[in-house]
Amino acid sequence: MQYDGVLFFVSARRKQTPQEMLGIAVRERRLELDVSQEQLAEMVSVHRNYVGKIERGEQNLTIETLVRFAKTFRCKPSELLGEAGL
Amino acid sequence: MQYDGVLFFVSARRKQTPQEMLGIAVRERRLELDVSQEQLAEMVSVHRNYVGKIERGEQNLTIETLVRFAKTFRCKPSELLGEAGL
Repeated sequence: MQYDGVLFFVSARRKQTPQEMLGIAVRERRLELDVSQEQLAEMVSVHRNYVGKIERGEQNLTIETLVRFAKTFRCKPSELLGEAGL
Repeated sequence: MQYDGVLFFVSARRKQTPQEMLGIAVRERRLELDVSQEQLAEMVSVHRNYVGKIERGEQNLTIETLVRFAKTFRCKPSELLGEAGL
């Protein structure tokens, strides 16, 4: 049996974590509001480094924090998760 | 001006926290599955006390844990939040 000339492509991209998926949705919402990470941090009353960590998917945020972000974005927490594909 | 015979009712019930709202939704889903708190804890791989705390709204759970519960309930995390009214 010969496989000459056949190329196998294997995707090396790992699956995104839920935190990363949510981070992308938060970033999109922030850009829609046209505010910086610092400004959003002030609106949600969290440390400004925290917003960066969330957007990079490095923060496993809690329901309480999710609710605060959703309030700032004037959407439901379930909508924000839905936008993240979660 | 007289207000004789007028009764004022003031609701003393405080607003539920997001954690309490989610706890009720988790409990409803667990009862639908017809499993005990202990059994659900085993399915989600958390300590059995943890499920009780979540259902009583005493636990501010993280996105990662929410995702694990939703997987066990075979629904999306956003659906579970939606059922909680969040």
